[in-house]
Amino acid sequence: MATELSPELRRSIENTIRGLTIDAVERAGIGHLGAPMGLARPVFQLWDRHLRFDPSDPDWALRDRFVLSAGHASMLLYSLLHLFEYELSLDDIKAFRQLGSRTPGHPEFGETAGVEITTGPLGQGFGHAVGMALAGRLARERFATGSEGPGHHFVYAVASDGDLMEGISYESASLAGHLGLGNLIVLYDDNQVTIDGPTSLTFSEDVRARFEAQGWHVQGVDGDDTAGLDAALESARAEGGRPSIVITRTTIGEGSGWAGLSKAHGGPFGADEVRATKENLGIPLDPEFFVPDEARTYLAGRAAAKREARAADDTRLSAWREAEPERAKAWDAARGRTLPADLAVTLADGLEGKADATRKHSGSVLQKLAEVAPILVGGSADLAGSNNTTLKGASDVGQGETPFAGGNVHYGIREHAMAAIVNGIALDGTFLPYAGTFMVFSDYMRPSIRLAALMGIRSTYVFTHDSIFVGEDGPTHQPVEQLDALRAIPGLTVFRPADGPETAAAWAYVASQAEGPVAFALSRQGVPAVERAKPFAAEDVWRGAYVVRDPASTPDVVVLASGSEVPLAVDTGKKLEAEGVQARVVSVPSLDLFTRQPDDVIDGMVPRDVPTVAVEAGLGESYRRLVGRDGLVYGMKGFGASAPWKHLADHFGFTPDKLAAAIRSHLGR
Amino acid sequence: MATELSPELRRSIENTIRGLTIDAVERAGIGHLGAPMGLARPVFQLWDRHLRFDPSDPDWALRDRFVLSAGHASMLLYSLLHLFEYELSLDDIKAFRQLGSRTPGHPEFGETAGVEITTGPLGQGFGHAVGMALAGRLARERFATGSEGPGHHFVYAVASDGDLMEGISYESASLAGHLGLGNLIVLYDDNQVTIDGPTSLTFSEDVRARFEAQGWHVQGVDGDDTAGLDAALESARAEGGRPSIVITRTTIGEGSGWAGLSKAHGGPFGADEVRATKENLGIPLDPEFFVPDEARTYLAGRAAAKREARAADDTRLSAWREAEPERAKAWDAARGRTLPADLAVTLADGLEGKADATRKHSGSVLQKLAEVAPILVGGSADLAGSNNTTLKGASDVGQGETPFAGGNVHYGIREHAMAAIVNGIALDGTFLPYAGTFMVFSDYMRPSIRLAALMGIRSTYVFTHDSIFVGEDGPTHQPVEQLDALRAIPGLTVFRPADGPETAAAWAYVASQAEGPVAFALSRQGVPAVERAKPFAAEDVWRGAYVVRDPASTPDVVVLASGSEVPLAVDTGKKLEAEGVQARVVSVPSLDLFTRQPDDVIDGMVPRDVPTVAVEAGLGESYRRLVGRDGLVYGMKGFGASAPWKHLADHFGFTPDKLAAAIRSHLGR
Repeated sequence: MATELSPELRRSIENTIRGLTIDAVERAGIGHLGAPMGLARPVFQLWDRHLRFDPSDPDWALRDRFVLSAGHASMLLYSLLHLFEYELSLDDIKAFRQLGSRTPGHPEFGETAGVEITTGPLGQGFGHAVGMALAGRLARERFATGSEGPGHHFVYAVASDGDLMEGISYESASLAGHLGLGNLIVLYDDNQVTIDGPTSLTFSEDVRARFEAQGWHVQGVDGDDTAGLDAALESARAEGGRPSIVITRTTIGEGSGWAGLSKAHGGPFGADEVRATKENLGIPLDPEFFVPDEARTYLAGRAAAKREARAADDTRLSAWREAEPERAKAWDAARGRTLPADLAVTLADGLEGKADATRKHSGSVLQKLAEVAPILVGGSADLAGSNNTTLKGASDVGQGETPFAGGNVHYGIREHAMAAIVNGIALDGTFLPYAGTFMVFSDYMRPSIRLAALMGIRSTYVFTHDSIFVGEDGPTHQPVEQLDALRAIPGLTVFRPADGPETAAAWAYVASQAEGPVAFALSRQGVPAVERAKPFAAEDVWRGAYVVRDPASTPDVVVLASGSEVPLAVDTGKKLEAEGVQARVVSVPSLDLFTRQPDDVIDGMVPRDVPTVAVEAGLGESYRRLVGRDGLVYGMKGFGASAPWKHLADHFGFTPDKLAAAIRSHLGR
Repeated sequence: MATELSPELRRSIENTIRGLTIDAVERAGIGHLGAPMGLARPVFQLWDRHLRFDPSDPDWALRDRFVLSAGHASMLLYSLLHLFEYELSLDDIKAFRQLGSRTPGHPEFGETAGVEITTGPLGQGFGHAVGMALAGRLARERFATGSEGPGHHFVYAVASDGDLMEGISYESASLAGHLGLGNLIVLYDDNQVTIDGPTSLTFSEDVRARFEAQGWHVQGVDGDDTAGLDAALESARAEGGRPSIVITRTTIGEGSGWAGLSKAHGGPFGADEVRATKENLGIPLDPEFFVPDEARTYLAGRAAAKREARAADDTRLSAWREAEPERAKAWDAARGRTLPADLAVTLADGLEGKADATRKHSGSVLQKLAEVAPILVGGSADLAGSNNTTLKGASDVGQGETPFAGGNVHYGIREHAMAAIVNGIALDGTFLPYAGTFMVFSDYMRPSIRLAALMGIRSTYVFTHDSIFVGEDGPTHQPVEQLDALRAIPGLTVFRPADGPETAAAWAYVASQAEGPVAFALSRQGVPAVERAKPFAAEDVWRGAYVVRDPASTPDVVVLASGSEVPLAVDTGKKLEAEGVQARVVSVPSLDLFTRQPDDVIDGMVPRDVPTVAVEAGLGESYRRLVGRDGLVYGMKGFGASAPWKHLADHFGFTPDKLAAAIRSHLGR
């Protein structure tokens, strides 16, 4: 049973959060304490009285989501997780920012029970929260029946000044307002201070007017006013058709001598300030990491109450399951990722020998995948037709009578928000989301792609127009360094398939095997079907590389290529053979997967004692690990140019004649 | 003498722009025609009646700047350049989107006289325009006297829906509003259509309210209403303290059968639609690329008038020069980049043998550089203290009585806008701008960094916290792939100096030699001074690499390192020598510069027949081109972790003991 929350007890708990924060930062010798101290009251109130969760089951599907976009305030989150009886001990908190601890400097998804998302890079949590809210609305419309069933939870995010200054927050807020995501509630920590000084140094927006202009429901409260916050949050939840932001005035470093100052952003305080602050707040100096018994008692009661509320929700969910067995089954299938075993075969069916742009192959594979895996949700940043990302059997999200019944998301010309939103959908765990744009614009999305890789979540990025063969749009639209730069992101798997079957195998990997994000690199231009030495097998693609052409005798050279350069390599191989040079051609649909193979697999396909050439209509330097210093990377040396792609192919040397000549010259033959 | 611009002649000129656009796109077989057709009237009016330029001298310092942020509307710009007698012939226009032409698919800085900036990636032009406007205000405050002297020009930008949906436009608009850049005037092409459909599919912001919330002066006009546009532009120019946006309602593809439709975004029309449109607009079908004589006459007159106006401005400028010889001299020195010959020596003075974090070395070098080169203008995205980017002798831009007299820019937590603004300042040509943040956040800036590299402009990015040795902030704040990803951008020179003298030489390179953008990678943590085999020479840094330690006998191994890993490599080399392994240690302050050296320089320092090891507290794969397939890249294999940096060094093996053991194992000794 919960004790009554007297004003004294409330203050004691808030100060416990402040004390834990101060001590953790003091022990670590570095960390952010101003925001947790300033937010202790409103965010404790949110967790205590509003947030629906079950500390014993952090993954409970119907829970409200809490996104600490201001990830530097991690000690606020860790304190709350500890106090509300998540699996996080005082010892964990004492190990704040230490190697291998559950309490890293910024919250990290997968490291700590109850941490929904990795945050820290500013603006990201905001954008991801929009995706989580969208996933909730999609799930509600697709599976729930009236007020019963999944998707009725709320997504609460805490955002700082920094979050609101980042472009991604405007982009994602714009789409959230446009779509009317009433299940998203942002608490803006309006503390009027950033690291360099008062917020007024750089930021003089009318935040209320800004969010109203983007279609949001805006309220303001004083962070000390818990009743006001309760009313604002109730009103926010009652507002079904607009996302809400609650501008919450707080004082950074509240309770300390640094209160309201820029320097309160980060600590440690040092012994004197710790003592003064603790005395001011009535926290005993000894022991450190002090939690009063009455706080423990109260919070144990509240944790129990949360568990009980969850049990009641489970009972309602069971009733819904019984009443709606088909919907329940579909929901379970979505979250359980139930997929046919022979997916790769199904997807590849009919594609062997077919010449087309790989973006078009991807589009047709997507249709088949959507049939067997109705969990696909995706779209493009205003290039749906070019990216071939539209699901033909699905309607547009945001349009019509049932705006969240669709599967096609129009993200608008907001690549960065798109990437974060896709990640947020992936984090929700119900859908398999994807995002499309031109590959050169992957640059706009990197901060979010990186987070997906760090979290190991299943976001998919469909990048078309993957080389200088974009053609006439010129160097601003022609990726040259992007393939290398994407391959450099740890944990991201890049596929650059050469034809229909390779594309199908890559999509099968996305749906059934991927343990982290996947990026596609797909051609704008038409590409001949690959002539393969042996029948196609999806496993070849999943291994990352396979031999498509082998000479009768020992190879004089191994030529590596991916995507649209595979047919070029094959033609060049034939030409070389006619000229007496034996070339093995290896298709490398995923350099990432290939370089993760055991040495014997790699050396068997690309022997160390045979000269190796990589050809890529981009820089291609990521092949160096196979080609070596003495091998030849036959790629671009700089930016492309505006011209029809066949002219570029000739100009930059991507023809069998020129490639064969370069290889012969390289071999000295 | 200019003919009178009758309504008929005006329409004829507008339709000439439309006709040139249609024909150019038709001949190229691909291109964007909707925007140029829709914008023909308002933008012709802007050029004809408002924009100050001299077609014979596109680089005239006092000209107004025209930024076509909607770069896909390139045929609008090319048509205007041709009609106003810039060096762009009808033959150039006929070669639209062809290899080597002056009329690439998107406008490219340096390829076409009169093109101020490369645009195409949406939002970039908007952000760069803010930088150009800021440079103008800084120049006015620093050099002008009242209404006389430089910096009184305006920056006009044309932005599309797509520009306004990109996060960078909100970020940069926020700062422009905050700083009150009254010399910035944006014409928003409100055509209510994007590629995927009506703008309402994804965008329902109240654009007026949005910009008002950001402190802008907002007006709206009908694109057909030239008098209304005149009045709006006059009012915008009269508004000295706020940037202006003129929401201009246009019809995409105006005059064609595709008018108002999404498909009008791109063409070609095809013969039938070309014929119908030309008939509708009264353009003769033959010849193509038709320019009526009366249009030629009028525009010749207008070009002459622009030249005359420029001459008058020159007269006023000469008077100012005479009245203010000191200011004129300072302005000329800034634009002429007058710098002492021995800059590197001056900057490096006193730094040899000094242990410190390289970010701190950079901060102290910056102070010296600012003394001899008062053209430095820069700052940080709210991390000035950490990035050591503050010029101690300069005040803050935007603060105090003379808000534009300062040199320290507080960009706010807006990394992307910061990069674009720095580029805009560089394009203006008066100042040498820089931008600072943590290296991991370079990801937010890549689209703008790429444009700087493509344009070959002198932007400098000061990235501190350049490895996993960021420490406790954890993997979200620890770059691992960023160094490789930055080195992959063609034309960007990355410096990762190891100590004070190397840092000084790199800044000297920035100020006096760079022909394109430069990125610094600087350590957070303290780093011992490099023990060098021979006296320091800046040329060693400018060559990209040099031997810091050579064994007495032939090396058994060459160890490559940069930045904070150089002292580690030196210590490891000593340890190996004690164990009978002769190691040469090469400091590589710029892998980019080193790999551009002739083969004999590279092979002399890093012989092909000696096993090579690269050590980097990041992925380090960009060293593969020197290390080869059989060499050892001793770097990170994935993301870092949250812990004190010395613990990370031990955990991830960056200690002399562990590195020496790995090298011995690699050598089989």
